[in-house]
Amino acid sequence: MKKIINRPEDLVHEALQGMASAYPELLKVHFAPDFISRADGPVKGKVGVLSGGGSGHEPMHGGFVGRGMLDAAVPGPVFTSPTPDQIQAATQAVDGGAGVLHIIKNYTGDRLNFEMAADLARAEGIEVEAVVINDDVAVQDSLYTAGRRGTGVTVIAEKIAGAAADQRRPLAAVAELCRKVNAQGRSMGLALTSCTVPQAGKPTFELPEDEMEIGIGIHGEPGRSRAKLRSAAEITALLANAVLDDLPFQRGDSVLAFVNGLGSTPMIELYGVYNELVKLCAGRGITIVRNLIGPYMTSLEMAGCTITLVKMDDELISLWDAPVKTAALRWGV
Amino acid sequence: MKKIINRPEDLVHEALQGMASAYPELLKVHFAPDFISRADGPVKGKVGVLSGGGSGHEPMHGGFVGRGMLDAAVPGPVFTSPTPDQIQAATQAVDGGAGVLHIIKNYTGDRLNFEMAADLARAEGIEVEAVVINDDVAVQDSLYTAGRRGTGVTVIAEKIAGAAADQRRPLAAVAELCRKVNAQGRSMGLALTSCTVPQAGKPTFELPEDEMEIGIGIHGEPGRSRAKLRSAAEITALLANAVLDDLPFQRGDSVLAFVNGLGSTPMIELYGVYNELVKLCAGRGITIVRNLIGPYMTSLEMAGCTITLVKMDDELISLWDAPVKTAALRWGV
Repeated sequence: MKKIINRPEDLVHEALQGMASAYPELLKVHFAPDFISRADGPVKGKVGVLSGGGSGHEPMHGGFVGRGMLDAAVPGPVFTSPTPDQIQAATQAVDGGAGVLHIIKNYTGDRLNFEMAADLARAEGIEVEAVVINDDVAVQDSLYTAGRRGTGVTVIAEKIAGAAADQRRPLAAVAELCRKVNAQGRSMGLALTSCTVPQAGKPTFELPEDEMEIGIGIHGEPGRSRAKLRSAAEITALLANAVLDDLPFQRGDSVLAFVNGLGSTPMIELYGVYNELVKLCAGRGITIVRNLIGPYMTSLEMAGCTITLVKMDDELISLWDAPVKTAALRWGV
Repeated sequence: MKKIINRPEDLVHEALQGMASAYPELLKVHFAPDFISRADGPVKGKVGVLSGGGSGHEPMHGGFVGRGMLDAAVPGPVFTSPTPDQIQAATQAVDGGAGVLHIIKNYTGDRLNFEMAADLARAEGIEVEAVVINDDVAVQDSLYTAGRRGTGVTVIAEKIAGAAADQRRPLAAVAELCRKVNAQGRSMGLALTSCTVPQAGKPTFELPEDEMEIGIGIHGEPGRSRAKLRSAAEITALLANAVLDDLPFQRGDSVLAFVNGLGSTPMIELYGVYNELVKLCAGRGITIVRNLIGPYMTSLEMAGCTITLVKMDDELISLWDAPVKTAALRWGV
């Protein structure tokens, strides 16, 4: 295992300390229980938007804490759900009196712990709504999931819900928008290599030198199948067609296209995939009106990418374009 | 070789097409000769700021084209200098009548080709100043370089020179600031793995499973030495102390700290390195006043990181903070 770390068991804690030092104007890092909250929060009268999950997907979620996106991010150990007490503490910290939205990726551990935290927070008089993101079309059930997994749509949902909350929309409306993004978004990914969880010390899985795993999960969960490595054009078609056919997206649709790097796939390759995706969508009569390209939801140092498409309308576009100021996404301010 | 590409020889071209599709509001991509220019350029009366070099370091340099940073980026093939005609065409394209600054990383091929292009542009009546970045303290001469290599300071110099040009400072002043950033900046890097140049098809070098290359170049050029893999704290000290001792930085200095990922080193590890760097700098009486953390100057999918420190004063801080709107760096607008 080749990593720039101290003791594996200290990695998440030390990374959080690094974030605390790096971004004091954006965020506060709390320890025991661990969570990251917006530096200027809680914002009175604003819905708090909170997400979280296992670490190892950086910059998701901590890199999305700040104005116009998340009020809090709750990191678990690498690829492991945060605990209910962490989530509860973060929920309390970001409640500005207008309630808190939990955005949860659909993994069994996350769902259980977020549900328990929501119950605890409600018992304290905090209104909580939960939206479960389950956009990954690859497989129905998976290693850690009943139903579909939550992947790339999470990033888009966090941005759009965050913008709606920033406009002081009420909790029910913010949650409804978040559900809409999830309902209108689909994703699929593919890996060329495994990642290595630091505390495991060895790759999660092995792939022969000429094979790829189609439909990979962001924790290395098995996908649909293994196949011989193919060209960028074929890989893009494999992922994008599965995504497009699932919703299904239709001729005339406007979409946000998110080409995400899983860790070690260079930007030059992601730009190449985006180039293929533009041609493919055009060929199917679908217009890409917004895009996001880069390693925003990673799986440590896994090589591979995910493609997410979200059907957009004027309201969603306007919320996507709204000001955001976080470590990883920043525009308009 | 596991990459998401079509034919290796088409990768740069296709990635440029992807960028053209993704960022029409920020940049224009020109082909034959290839270069990227700011969408709303040339800006009349503003110094044009131009950089370039081999591809494979994305988002550097194309990701830095836009308001407040570069007016043009000239990409060569992977790890290969762009040609004089490319650089000349880009220089012409961004000349708004106030001259053009070339920011050149110190590699022999880049220097020769930029010099030739500058001569050609001058012959056409365009004023050109050139600043060579040579911040890498690792080795004096290297595989492709006489003198020190240009690395992380390039990103900082592009931002600061771009901000100065955006304020309509004259060419000589913009060049002088760029030289100052170079003079006050130092970098060193380290690799845990090699990258694979697509057209070569195999890793540039081999490193045993328990070794790292200290002082690596961003094309995989050999560094100072190989050593057994060490902890994040020790790795940070190795790099940061070499950087600090070289200028030397002194007690009381304010610095910008740039912790750069070379490709496949995850953000969680870079945050950990930053955490160590904060402690180390504090121990030496040096204050980090600004930071940049992430894969901004990569070496394809190499695992490793570089640490850059630049001594800052109020003027440099204000130029760093000035609005920037590019694909990879964006704030204030």
